[in-house]
Formats: sequence, structure tokens, C-alpha cells
Amino acid sequence: MTRPHLSIRLDLTSGDRIGPGKIELLEAIREAGSISGGARKIGMSYRRAWLLVEEINAALQEPAVTSTTGGRQGGGAVLTPVGKKIIEIYRSIEAAAQKSADSEFRAVEKITRSKGKGRS
Amino acid sequence: MTRPHLSIRLDLTSGDRIGPGKIELLEAIREAGSISGGARKIGMSYRRAWLLVEEINAALQEPAVTSTTGGRQGGGAVLTPVGKKIIEIYRSIEAAAQKSADSEFRAVEKITRSKGKGRS
Repeated sequence: MTRPHLSIRLDLTSGDRIGPGKIELLEAIREAGSISGGARKIGMSYRRAWLLVEEINAALQEPAVTSTTGGRQGGGAVLTPVGKKIIEIYRSIEAAAQKSADSEFRAVEKITRSKGKGRS
Repeated sequence: MTRPHLSIRLDLTSGDRIGPGKIELLEAIREAGSISGGARKIGMSYRRAWLLVEEINAALQEPAVTSTTGGRQGGGAVLTPVGKKIIEIYRSIEAAAQKSADSEFRAVEKITRSKGKGRS
């Protein structure tokens, strides 16, 4: 992504963390209809995707993703209402944070190097 | 940290990233007066601190940290005006983002587990 932007991570009271990787994965699962399909979509290994889903589910009061059948290669997965909610809230926080940071961001870009113009 | 909060990372046009680890290191160097002292303060290896300082310096139009003398163990380091500026801007963006996220954050905490009450 070339446009300057904020990445945010929610550091929860429980110690759990929800950042861009987990949210992107949830969105990919929602679109693909399975954990393996979602993982493939974003170039993530199935194993890592599975572990992240476990982490997300453990962080929430109800799971974000439920599998419709088992199996490593097959098996569908759907997002629960809580899963959809966490995406929605995260994207909303991100948009508000980005908006509030816009003018400061321009100040950062003024003191950072341009793309591809690395220091020697 | 137990209070729920946002962590932010600045993803710059150049591809460089400035997140909480780098900013915390800069602040520690500012206080300690050396890279090794700053690293020690936050429990970071000298090697990692040195690499992060290199990354930060490369991301900016002017270095954020300059060494007053060399040497792996000794040698002082001071923050340049650009180094101080990047801390200031980062903390300002962080505060604005946190403020804008406060109400949404309460919505997140409502659907996440409480501290230490892990799912079995």
C-alpha cells in the first residue's frame, strides 16, 4: 500500500490483541466461506490462519468463526454475528483514527524520505 | 498494560513503518543518553536497538539519533530535532486516535472476554 496510513491494534483488557492481520483474515474467511480459502486469499498458511482464528475465538465471548465441517483441506467456515461485529467495530475505529490523524500525518510525511529515495 | 488501548503504526509512503517499539526506544534513548542505556531501559538487546535506530534514521530525511562517540558498550547518543519531532507527532496522533476510538472501544470490550477468564 503506497498511501500513508495508520495501522491500529486493539490491546484489550484481557491481554488479547486484535490487529490488522486478524481482521483481514476474518474478512477473507467471510468472503471465501472457509478458513483454507480465506487463508489462500491473503497468502497466509492454513496453519497460521487456523491458529489466528483460535486466538480470535478465545478473545471473544462467543466465537467469531464456526466451522461447518471439519477437515484440513475441506470444511466450510462462517462468521458469527460476533465475528461480523468485531470487523465492523475495528474498521470503524480505524477510519475514525485515520481521520483524526490526517493533518498530523502530513507533518510526518514532511520529515520522512520519499518512496524509493533511500539514504545511502 | 491492563487498560484497553490502541496501538498505532504509521505506514509511510516510502514503505517505512514507525510503530510503538521504535517510538518507545527513541524515548528511552532520549532519557538514557545512549543507545545501550535506552535499550537496557526497555529490556531490548543492544543489537536490536541499534538495528531499529538504523531503520528509523533511514526512514527520515535527517537522522533521529546521532552518536556522540562510537563503541559497542560506551558511546553517547542524542536525539536530533527530527528525532524529537517524530516522537511528538506520533504521541499526538496516538492520543487523537485513542480519543476518537473511546466509545467504539467500549463496544469492543462488551464482546471480548474479561481478563484471565479464558475460554476452555
